[in-house]
Amino acid sequence: MISNFLCSTTAPIVQTKYGKLRGFVADSTYTFYGIKYADAERFQLPKPPKSWEGVKDALGYGYVCPLMSQDKPGSGEMKVPHRYWPMDENCQYLNIWTQSLDTSAKKPVMVWLHGGGFAAGSSIEQAAYDGKNMSQYGDVVVVSINHRLNILGYLDVSPFGEKYKNSANAGSADMVAALKWIHENIEAFGGDPENVTLFGQSGGGMKVWTLMQIPEADGLFHKGIVQSGLLDMIGFGESAFKGKVDGTEIVSAMMKEMGIETIEELEKAPYNKMAQAYQKVFMDVAKEGKYVGGNPVADDFYLGDPLVVGFTEHAKTIPIMIGTVLDEFLGFAPGRPDRNTMTAEEARAMIAGVYGEKNADQMIALFKKAYPGKNLCDLAILDSDFRAPTKRFIAEKSKYDQSPTYSYLFAFDFPIDEGAGPWHCSEIPFVFHNTELVPVCNKPGVSDKLEHQMFSAWVNFAKYGDPNDASLPAWAACKPGDEACMIFDEECEVRHNHDNELIALHRTCAPKFGFGNVEIQH
Amino acid sequence: MISNFLCSTTAPIVQTKYGKLRGFVADSTYTFYGIKYADAERFQLPKPPKSWEGVKDALGYGYVCPLMSQDKPGSGEMKVPHRYWPMDENCQYLNIWTQSLDTSAKKPVMVWLHGGGFAAGSSIEQAAYDGKNMSQYGDVVVVSINHRLNILGYLDVSPFGEKYKNSANAGSADMVAALKWIHENIEAFGGDPENVTLFGQSGGGMKVWTLMQIPEADGLFHKGIVQSGLLDMIGFGESAFKGKVDGTEIVSAMMKEMGIETIEELEKAPYNKMAQAYQKVFMDVAKEGKYVGGNPVADDFYLGDPLVVGFTEHAKTIPIMIGTVLDEFLGFAPGRPDRNTMTAEEARAMIAGVYGEKNADQMIALFKKAYPGKNLCDLAILDSDFRAPTKRFIAEKSKYDQSPTYSYLFAFDFPIDEGAGPWHCSEIPFVFHNTELVPVCNKPGVSDKLEHQMFSAWVNFAKYGDPNDASLPAWAACKPGDEACMIFDEECEVRHNHDNELIALHRTCAPKFGFGNVEIQH
Repeated sequence: MISNFLCSTTAPIVQTKYGKLRGFVADSTYTFYGIKYADAERFQLPKPPKSWEGVKDALGYGYVCPLMSQDKPGSGEMKVPHRYWPMDENCQYLNIWTQSLDTSAKKPVMVWLHGGGFAAGSSIEQAAYDGKNMSQYGDVVVVSINHRLNILGYLDVSPFGEKYKNSANAGSADMVAALKWIHENIEAFGGDPENVTLFGQSGGGMKVWTLMQIPEADGLFHKGIVQSGLLDMIGFGESAFKGKVDGTEIVSAMMKEMGIETIEELEKAPYNKMAQAYQKVFMDVAKEGKYVGGNPVADDFYLGDPLVVGFTEHAKTIPIMIGTVLDEFLGFAPGRPDRNTMTAEEARAMIAGVYGEKNADQMIALFKKAYPGKNLCDLAILDSDFRAPTKRFIAEKSKYDQSPTYSYLFAFDFPIDEGAGPWHCSEIPFVFHNTELVPVCNKPGVSDKLEHQMFSAWVNFAKYGDPNDASLPAWAACKPGDEACMIFDEECEVRHNHDNELIALHRTCAPKFGFGNVEIQH
Repeated sequence: MISNFLCSTTAPIVQTKYGKLRGFVADSTYTFYGIKYADAERFQLPKPPKSWEGVKDALGYGYVCPLMSQDKPGSGEMKVPHRYWPMDENCQYLNIWTQSLDTSAKKPVMVWLHGGGFAAGSSIEQAAYDGKNMSQYGDVVVVSINHRLNILGYLDVSPFGEKYKNSANAGSADMVAALKWIHENIEAFGGDPENVTLFGQSGGGMKVWTLMQIPEADGLFHKGIVQSGLLDMIGFGESAFKGKVDGTEIVSAMMKEMGIETIEELEKAPYNKMAQAYQKVFMDVAKEGKYVGGNPVADDFYLGDPLVVGFTEHAKTIPIMIGTVLDEFLGFAPGRPDRNTMTAEEARAMIAGVYGEKNADQMIALFKKAYPGKNLCDLAILDSDFRAPTKRFIAEKSKYDQSPTYSYLFAFDFPIDEGAGPWHCSEIPFVFHNTELVPVCNKPGVSDKLEHQMFSAWVNFAKYGDPNDASLPAWAACKPGDEACMIFDEECEVRHNHDNELIALHRTCAPKFGFGNVEIQH
């Protein structure tokens, strides 16, 4: 049961800059859901929320940003349990879990940026995103935020009028507004505005490094954790992330599809109509190599991908923890009944089938060297789409000794099918101390220990800028040419440059569009 | 943590009539989500699902029925935490939680019918609907189902063609199809097809007595629990439930609004367009006193409201447990800071304000007699919209000694605001043994005991047709003129005809449309 519950007309109530909010207490955790941190018109920068008199309830999550299309529920739920929520453009909401409302408590603040690229997801999309356990076991303030996504947050409408000049990065401007709100108000929730750590996975990881390159966010956060947050898919060619922005084609095509003539009509059109039109036309525009929106674009506000334009001077000062999981997208592949019964010949044939006859033996040798205990089925679905750019990020960032860069790789073998290497998103329940909410994580005698280790590393990094913990082997920051990588697994260990050769070869022989027909969650 | 997890390529797998299904085990519970029990074309009766080869995963919830409009998230979440899910007309899915897959285990089966009238909700809509704890603590098989709702499940299109003759109760036909699937397959999930109990709240309670009056469902279930499942709102006049069906006006109005001319176009129209048109036109049609759909209608398939047409001979043989909660819809009213500090004079003034000066003293006296320990604030928001027709149901049903009728009233004072009487839906977490999932239920030293008592009553009733439990005072079935009512509260007790006079007077002096502007969840 919940040992303590409080939600009276007088407590817990917090005075924010804009008015008083009532939350609730469950066990030891003060909880505030659905706090409005900004308001925004479509295609415009966010503005501070309106002030109010009296006490406003913060007892239910706020709207999440509308998505381009509906998810198809299915068996993927076992691997990544989802939550859905009513959607509205008016989606600038955040949630807070904290152990104290004492303004002098100054607990470290951990801000979760959800995944789903810059187009999908929400602060509550996954069951594992719940912040209660992390706050309670880690004595930290956990914040999660919604912001504008897809064509609401990342569509350049600037060619159609001066008033739209900020539309291309409006979603990131929302995040900056959330960080400002946190900076101004988090003390009242027991948090330290001078010790704010961003963490996020997939698109959420991308948001961490995106915010590092936005000068307006300088000083609003102090550390970053990038989980599977760089993606360079083989065969996808030049990423839209780096394309030159010009929304003329995509916006014109949308308006034509919608049968409207003025930008004001687009501004007022129902979201669903706009989304449907976008989905009909974007592929044709993309095929011509033109910008189609949906991602941040470099401009005066956002200075660009650090691996393209370099880290800003401020970004160089941000301590970073960064990593990926062993199988990422391919971890969603169906289980293999013969995983544990395959002969060495069968395994070699499988690897040759994936990487080619001429690479099979070397791939097997390099994999065994990198991951001595691992099943060769994990080599067949090994990720480098995330791992390769993550290694480049580490190499680049660790050049700057103003701040440390810690590397990890999550390699846990999950107890589903006949065993399964970790898929995209699979580390999240461990990070949030929420494996009890995600059945597939639970391996008696094993997963609790690993959860404690990972959770502790994340919380320690947020507290001290250093993930080391008594439960883990000593973990050094990376240096140029020396990637010290914590392998999170049944037995955690730190390895140096353990997969350099493996990943280099993998990039040359892995199938293009490697995930094929596998159902991808995000 | 979860002490046990299993989901391999070989287990747990169950052979159903249509093919093999793979679920998962968490702790001791075998779980199967999203089982397709039927397929249906729009406006048509459901058909058995297609058979398949090999093993199909049943690891994620299935689609829920599309709703007419989106919920607005808000503070109501504290009282009734919701879950949302992707929607599709193809929504005939059920979920199973069980402790055994032994075909000879023959555990009692409890089938949950969700609320939301016949227009909204889903099998997973509320956090409290999760069946794991009920199955685990009660050693029963729990099943929950989705079915067609609103204009998909309850719109009479029969005037537009012989092929649409079953459209008006298609949603109920889905439920019958689910019960057939359960009858044919539940043995393979350790259940007893000859001991099936329906239970449901609000619209779900209505579904229980609706199915009692559907001859095609005879023999497919054996007991029923009706939780807040009869509604007779003061001032609402003759209910649409009892109106004569003729879909001509509403369907014609919808088609006109949609700019379509043939029924085949309506049959193929996107749901959202149909729903928008319906919402634009239904009020005008309703104002003329015409049928607008959205509820079952009496015909050859469904014989009609038992309080109007009488119980079927078969319905008379069904043991029933039935009850309401003290404040129902008005329990969503905002808290009163002065709840515990009001003087007797202030309380009387409050009551006089609600029920009129001339009734105040008598209402207070009758309330104190009926509920000696209760706060007068609960009298100010007392429900009789559900309680009055429930009492009529009890009086009518208890005439038949072929089967017992047990009565209850849930009166727990929740630890929110300065205390709050129970609102519509508030008993559900106790019934499912899920108060740990709904923070507002938790009052240390009190709620766990009450949860055990209520949960045990529900499970015992499902097992034996008798809710008595060692943890509760002796509880007799009702007799004509003698309503023995179990008051579920901090101290449970059985009272006889305890509120007859109170409810009778309440019906004469309660404000019409009593719930006013209070936000109603369902």
